[in-house]
Amino acid sequence: MIPRLTRFPENPLIAPEQVRPSLEGWEVVCTFNPGAVLWRDEVRLLVRVAERPRSERPEEVTAPVLDLSSDPPRLTTLRVRRDDPELEEMDPRWFRYRGQTYLTTISHLRLARSHEGRRFVVEDTPALAPQVWYEGFGAEDPRITELEGRYLVTYTAVSKHGIATALATTEDFATFTRRGLILPPENRDVAVFPGRINGRYACHHRPFPRHIGAASMWIAYSPDLVHWGGHDLLMLPRPGAWDGGRIGGGAVPIRTDRGWLCIYHGADESNRYALGAVLCDLEQPACVLARSDEPFLVPEAPYETEGFFDNVVFTCGAVLRGDTVSIYYGAADKYVCGAEASLSEVLDSLTSAAS
Amino acid sequence: MIPRLTRFPENPLIAPEQVRPSLEGWEVVCTFNPGAVLWRDEVRLLVRVAERPRSERPEEVTAPVLDLSSDPPRLTTLRVRRDDPELEEMDPRWFRYRGQTYLTTISHLRLARSHEGRRFVVEDTPALAPQVWYEGFGAEDPRITELEGRYLVTYTAVSKHGIATALATTEDFATFTRRGLILPPENRDVAVFPGRINGRYACHHRPFPRHIGAASMWIAYSPDLVHWGGHDLLMLPRPGAWDGGRIGGGAVPIRTDRGWLCIYHGADESNRYALGAVLCDLEQPACVLARSDEPFLVPEAPYETEGFFDNVVFTCGAVLRGDTVSIYYGAADKYVCGAEASLSEVLDSLTSAAS
Repeated sequence: MIPRLTRFPENPLIAPEQVRPSLEGWEVVCTFNPGAVLWRDEVRLLVRVAERPRSERPEEVTAPVLDLSSDPPRLTTLRVRRDDPELEEMDPRWFRYRGQTYLTTISHLRLARSHEGRRFVVEDTPALAPQVWYEGFGAEDPRITELEGRYLVTYTAVSKHGIATALATTEDFATFTRRGLILPPENRDVAVFPGRINGRYACHHRPFPRHIGAASMWIAYSPDLVHWGGHDLLMLPRPGAWDGGRIGGGAVPIRTDRGWLCIYHGADESNRYALGAVLCDLEQPACVLARSDEPFLVPEAPYETEGFFDNVVFTCGAVLRGDTVSIYYGAADKYVCGAEASLSEVLDSLTSAAS
Repeated sequence: MIPRLTRFPENPLIAPEQVRPSLEGWEVVCTFNPGAVLWRDEVRLLVRVAERPRSERPEEVTAPVLDLSSDPPRLTTLRVRRDDPELEEMDPRWFRYRGQTYLTTISHLRLARSHEGRRFVVEDTPALAPQVWYEGFGAEDPRITELEGRYLVTYTAVSKHGIATALATTEDFATFTRRGLILPPENRDVAVFPGRINGRYACHHRPFPRHIGAASMWIAYSPDLVHWGGHDLLMLPRPGAWDGGRIGGGAVPIRTDRGWLCIYHGADESNRYALGAVLCDLEQPACVLARSDEPFLVPEAPYETEGFFDNVVFTCGAVLRGDTVSIYYGAADKYVCGAEASLSEVLDSLTSAAS
């Protein structure tokens, strides 16, 4: 049985009210799903910051949208009256209006730093904010991979044309170079492995097919990080189990002597998101060596069971120091939280279950 | 106004009853959506042949499925009684059973040859038949690109895990080398341009997103035909028009001195599939120079309005000889048909509309 993660007593580590919105008159609604990486002696997070115009009108729903017709593009707001017959409210995260889906918030990525990895200083301005057409509805859920002296950020690029995955690179977390869409819609939860495997780069990805197939984890390969192919199925949701509804990659895979440790998320049929682990072969990362039967983090703490979207723990990043894996995660789509485990205990539990 | 295509008087060129099934006791239900290429002095088609076990039981629906547990994999059949409460019949092409979507036929690719391009000899056995996991429900809708001395075949690979796009290469249409999935689910209608553009290969593709976005035409680039990136939106359906429901690439783009001529399909909101044309910049193929307001082929002939799935004309291939473009197309998801136009007239109509 996989050991349960130990939550940081400091949780939540970052809450929306601590973070300055990027525009005057706007409010930060959610700070969550951070990518995480060790930068020299500090932990750096890229936090997904979801914001919206402060609304004084409860009779309205609003959707912030990037206006690409202005130069530079700027944030504007679609306002729809709740009694409009063409409005279909779905859940706190989105609505449909005149046949088009809109998000109720728009996300950017914000840098947060901490020496011990628990008390974070959050920058006052975005690190990477929506700027191009494929980010018209936001930049979400970053994964950070340190690779060959620089940092890759794979993030979900949402626009009215779809939910896709974009790549940006940075050396200093101050300036980012966009490298375009690396996977077309509908695809998210992309994490690049921190090293070449048999000469090629590799990533997890999560297509969400429309007509046939489940929301499963896939793997792909690349010679150059920009062009991807060799798509292969990695693993499926397990109907009836904690990860029976959908699964997707979480933290960037951690290289261990027993294989790639991959922390992933699974949602059950009632949309409760939990975290589990899978161990994959070092040389053949599409080969699953072991998968945790049980989750090792489920929404139980109050900040996980109640927030913007309830009953969610969702990770985009983990940091390994010594034998301790610190997992940073979004709780209830609202907070940044942390939890930790002993790497060797996690590996022991996985490999003993598999043997 | 774009000139209407002239149908071949020999239509339909290939019908299911002319084609031998790949297994005894099976029947060919549809012969359609052929890829087309000039091979020396003949026209070669790879025809999508959809077949199923000959059923004597009207109380049943059947789904042919590749059984991967046998070596070599072999075709088997799922049989479901029509009164089974877990069965949900959708249209002639598919049904749902116990939460899983199945196709009522399984497709392979079959070679057909003709000197003048109208009377075809169809081989008795498949050229490329389902064999690997991603073809578990079939290989469909091939596009053939002649490139650097060999032929690329991009085809829709359907399995229970999704509708994706695979690549195979051949030099002789007798043996094919599989190159794996080049685009993950859900993606089809992929045609590779017949030449590098600014050093890279290019293709059209058609993702079908689940949550946000329309079924639009995209473009991608590759250094090696296996790994693809630089995904960019090419064009959208036009709500209310003949191509208002969904669009997708058709024939392999034809290089002309005025741009890439791309024949694409569009379906309206009532699922009537027609063909149109778009002209794209030679050096920047994501730049649309002109798009036909009207379709240049709509389902009107009896073999187009009534078949396996009615009111469909759908192309995967065209052949240029002199000034004549011969477009091969699937009619009513059942027949192979052909139609032709003058290249210069098509280009004139497109460029005059754009100017």
